[in-house]
Parts: sequence; C-alpha cells; structure tokens
Amino acid sequence: MPAKLEDLGEREIIRRIKDLLGEAERGIGLGDDTAAVLLGDSYLLVTTDLMVRKTHIPESMTPFQTGWYVTAINLSDIAAMGGEPLGFLVALGLPRQMEYEDLEQCVLGMEKCCSEHGTEILGGDTKESEEFTLSGTAIGTVPKEDILLRSGSRVGDQVCVTGPLGRAACGYFALKRGLNLDDSISALLAPRPRVREGMALSSAGSVTACMDISDGLASSLHQMTELGGSHFKIAYEEIPKSQDLTAFPDIPQEDLVLYFGGDYELVFTVRKDGLEDVRQTLERAGSGLWRMGEVVESGENILEIGGEKHPLPNRGWEHLSLAARKSFKY
Amino acid sequence: MPAKLEDLGEREIIRRIKDLLGEAERGIGLGDDTAAVLLGDSYLLVTTDLMVRKTHIPESMTPFQTGWYVTAINLSDIAAMGGEPLGFLVALGLPRQMEYEDLEQCVLGMEKCCSEHGTEILGGDTKESEEFTLSGTAIGTVPKEDILLRSGSRVGDQVCVTGPLGRAACGYFALKRGLNLDDSISALLAPRPRVREGMALSSAGSVTACMDISDGLASSLHQMTELGGSHFKIAYEEIPKSQDLTAFPDIPQEDLVLYFGGDYELVFTVRKDGLEDVRQTLERAGSGLWRMGEVVESGENILEIGGEKHPLPNRGWEHLSLAARKSFKY
Repeated sequence: MPAKLEDLGEREIIRRIKDLLGEAERGIGLGDDTAAVLLGDSYLLVTTDLMVRKTHIPESMTPFQTGWYVTAINLSDIAAMGGEPLGFLVALGLPRQMEYEDLEQCVLGMEKCCSEHGTEILGGDTKESEEFTLSGTAIGTVPKEDILLRSGSRVGDQVCVTGPLGRAACGYFALKRGLNLDDSISALLAPRPRVREGMALSSAGSVTACMDISDGLASSLHQMTELGGSHFKIAYEEIPKSQDLTAFPDIPQEDLVLYFGGDYELVFTVRKDGLEDVRQTLERAGSGLWRMGEVVESGENILEIGGEKHPLPNRGWEHLSLAARKSFKY
Repeated sequence: MPAKLEDLGEREIIRRIKDLLGEAERGIGLGDDTAAVLLGDSYLLVTTDLMVRKTHIPESMTPFQTGWYVTAINLSDIAAMGGEPLGFLVALGLPRQMEYEDLEQCVLGMEKCCSEHGTEILGGDTKESEEFTLSGTAIGTVPKEDILLRSGSRVGDQVCVTGPLGRAACGYFALKRGLNLDDSISALLAPRPRVREGMALSSAGSVTACMDISDGLASSLHQMTELGGSHFKIAYEEIPKSQDLTAFPDIPQEDLVLYFGGDYELVFTVRKDGLEDVRQTLERAGSGLWRMGEVVESGENILEIGGEKHPLPNRGWEHLSLAARKSFKY
C-alpha cells in the first residue's frame, strides 16, 4: 500500500528525500536546516522556513508577532551555524479578505526582528492563497574555518546551552489555561534568535558542534547523534530551566524542559579546555553559558536524573507525526 | 474603512510595503523580484517564490511538473538579472494525507529542473499544512558590473525578447478546451527558465535592462517603466508568437500574446550598436533574439498594430486583483 505522509512523519520523509537526492556537490548541510555554499573564504548560508496560519500560528499570535516569528526562526538557523545575517526575504501567500493593516503589522514585525539582529528585509514575493502563509528565507555568511555544524562533537566535549529551557512550553500552556505568564508567552510567540551568541560561538574556535533547539532538547541531541555519530549524557538537574515551570504541577516537568521545543536556544559542544574561554566570549556578547552534560562513549543518549541514568528518548515536536503529537495532550 | 487586500491588488500592496520599508542598505532590488547583495566583486542574488496547490496549480499539473515549476520560476528570477545559479532550496507545506510517492515525484521534478540548468537542490524545510504549498528560494551570482536590472533603458535602445509569446496562454486554453497542443501545454506546465540566455545577456555588456515576462509582456514593460522611467514602443507584428494561436480564433490574439503571461521569456533592451553582437551571443548560447520595438521619448507605452499607434494598456496577470482576473474569462 502506498504510504501517506502521516504514516512516515517529518524525519522519515526528510531521510528518504536525502537518500533520493544524495549529497549536494557545491554545498554542505542537507542535514542541517541551513545550506552552506563555499564562496571564496566564506560559507554563504541560506535557509528557508515556512509557516501556515492554520497549522502553525496560535490564535493569540498578533500579526506583528507572526512577522517577527517567521523572521526569528530563519535567523535562528543562521545563528546555529555561527553566521552573520546578510538579509531576509519573505514569500507571502495572502487571502483576499485579509486586512491590509494586518499585513503591514506583519511586515513591521519582520523589520523589527531584522533590525534588532543587525540585518534587514531585502525582498520578497506576494501570491494569493486561502490560508495566510509566510515563507521566510535568511542569508548569512561565516568564515570558512568557523562554520558550526550539527556534527563534529568528540568524546569528552562539554554539552552547553545558551539559556533556560521550557519557556516556550510554559508559554503554550499558560495561553491554553489563561495564565498571565508574560515572559513565557513572549518566549513562545516572539522568540529571540541567538544571532550574537552564534557569532560568538563560531569565533571562539573551540566549539565543535551546534544546533538550535526548535524541536526540543531531546530531539535536537538525537539529530546531532544521527549526523555526527556522537552520544550525549545530560544531567537533568544542571539544565537551566524556565522559572514558570512551577505553574504546571500536573504536567511532567521533563515534557516541558526536554521534549516540547520552541525555545530557540543554542545547544552546543565545546572542547573541555575551551569552556572558560567560550563562557567569557558569550558573556562579552551579553549572554551566558550553562554546562549540562558531556559527549560520552556510549551506544545511546543518556539522561541522568535523581542520581539515576536512563536512555534519553528520541521524542519531540515533529510535523506530520501523529505519534509525536499525541505525546503533548494535557 | 480599512482596506482588504483584494481592494488593493498585488502591485498596490507591494508599492505600499516598499514605502513602509524604504530602501535596503545592503541590497538593491526591492523593485526587482530578486534581491542583490554586494559580496566582493559580485552580487549575490536571492529570490523566493511561492505556489499554493489550490490557487496556483492547475489540476492537470503532475507532481513532477509542480516541482519543476516552482524551481523554474525561481531560476527565472535569477536569469532575469543575468545570474549564474548557485543552488535551490524549498520549504514545503505538506498535507497529512498526501501520498509520499507524489512528494518524491515533486522533488525529482525540482532536481531535474536544477540539473538541466547547471545547479542543484541545497536544502529545505518541511512543515504540515492543509494545502500543499511550495516555497522555492534560488540563489545565484553575477559579476558586479554585469548585473541586469529592470531599470537602465535609454531612448534609442532596442526592445527584444528571447522567444515566442503566447505559448503558455495557448496551453492554458488548450487544457480548458481539451485540445492536444502538447508544446503549448508543456510551455504552461513546465516552463524553461532562460538561465543560459540571461548569463549570455549579462556578459554581452550592451544590454541595458532585462526582466522575465511572468505576468505578460504589457505588464512587464509597465513594471520596467515604473522602475526605470523609460517608455517603450512595440510593433505587434514583430513580436514572435506561438504557432498555436490559430487554434483559438474566438479569443482576441493580443490577449494571448500581450496580457496573459506565463511564458518566462526574457524581455530586454539593448544599445542599438550592440544588437548584432547580442544576437550572436544568444545564438552561441543556443537561443535567439527577436527585436520588437524600441525605447522612445513619450509619456506612455505604445503598441503599433496594423499601422496604427495605441497606448499599451497596463493589463496582465495580477494576484489578488479581481479586475485583472475578470479580463481572462473565455
């Protein structure tokens, strides 16, 4: 029987398409969200990310936030490779009955997210569609030797993150339950791409792999394992966490911290002898570093929690996957 | 009363957004479909174009052709600026119930269109959506001094085109009426981006402006007027035309040739003393040149037909515009 997409799920679909296409000759990174093409002494980075009103945009997201969001998720992909953004483009599918005022707010949200991260809107495309659809494209550059990939971690490297996890998850459930947790809601609806942090990490020289945590920490680590072959041991108690977790005593905390996703912090590995240097580099960029684990000789990813070791499940946000979706019903 | 998008139409929407944003600092080309960013001695070209199943994809377009099409329209934007393609990315909005086989065919269509034009798929993004949505991004480069823009024409320049017009229109009505006009149907469903031609034109040195004719010749010339200030006089009899026009004696021929669009030929202006050189350059690229008019001192664009001069209406395919849509009911 021919397979429907929901039988496969997003990651299996991507795996099949990668097999179908083989490796790009000019570029690297069909596994990373961003393509990298060597131009002289630098990689040109290009990434594209799509949002559709009905499937991806919560009711409570304003048009301004929607524009910010589609820009942020694309800039986050550039940041994850350590790139400096060069610009942003957007292709818009627009319903005939949409108010022009909403479109204008959306464009202003894009512009604001660009300008706060040192870049600008370069162009775009408008088409008619039934559902409001936004497809962003961000471009950037990174010096050839500084590029950060999802692969590259070595045993003994330290696993770190640029900020607290679970904020977007708290924002999601706060909205669902009518709680006024403004910081978390803002983290969900208008996430900040870690552009400065990514550039600081790529310039540091001792960062061996990096990824943004859009689908949750567990899923991100498993994607890094798939591409680079390394395995990670994470100490749950050392993960920096959202201060709003206590507002949801009925939801298993690990679901919010490890599996929900949407935080857009960078998870990265760094050589042990470079840890303090990277911490200082991040602090100079106005950010911080939290060490939460290390790269280990193991056949699986491991979560240390309450003094015990467990396998870290490969669970997280996945499009087109009924199984993944069912795990977040509270 | 607040305006809805259908009250404004695509071009007015774009004009307002351009006013809102102002000129990009790094780039040129918020007026052209493609953004150009100076990187060293070359412009990096980036363009993005969106297709939505229900609104833009004819029933008879196969998944393979759909993949080809979204690639072709993006590569056409690179071609119009004289660029060499560096790669293609696609963001896909996928319905859960879509067959994987159709997605695979679609990806193979993209790959074929890339490989036939000297480039490749570099990456992408998949998301869930109710409507099958494809958002392509093409990147390319062109030497700084060779870039082709929609502006730049001077009085006396010759107006030329790379191939016959009205083919996509004939294909559209052939499908609608069940006629077996395979060449025209193929021109509609799997247009060839004029990549080699664009590169030849940019290297020739005497081409002063260029654009792809996606929305029809009349509309394209008016967009060139808007950006560059020049006016064009076109001799209708000299326009190269589809051989299938005779199959539609009840449809005004000018509608098919001048206003329908979808042909993706390049219209360009060339200095009079460069015309033969450009013709030879195009012939070496396996293509041809048809001269059909010139840049004139005038307050409007002019169509010479049957020995008489008329204003050339600014009419053509326009998204979100009820007025434009109503003009193609046969």
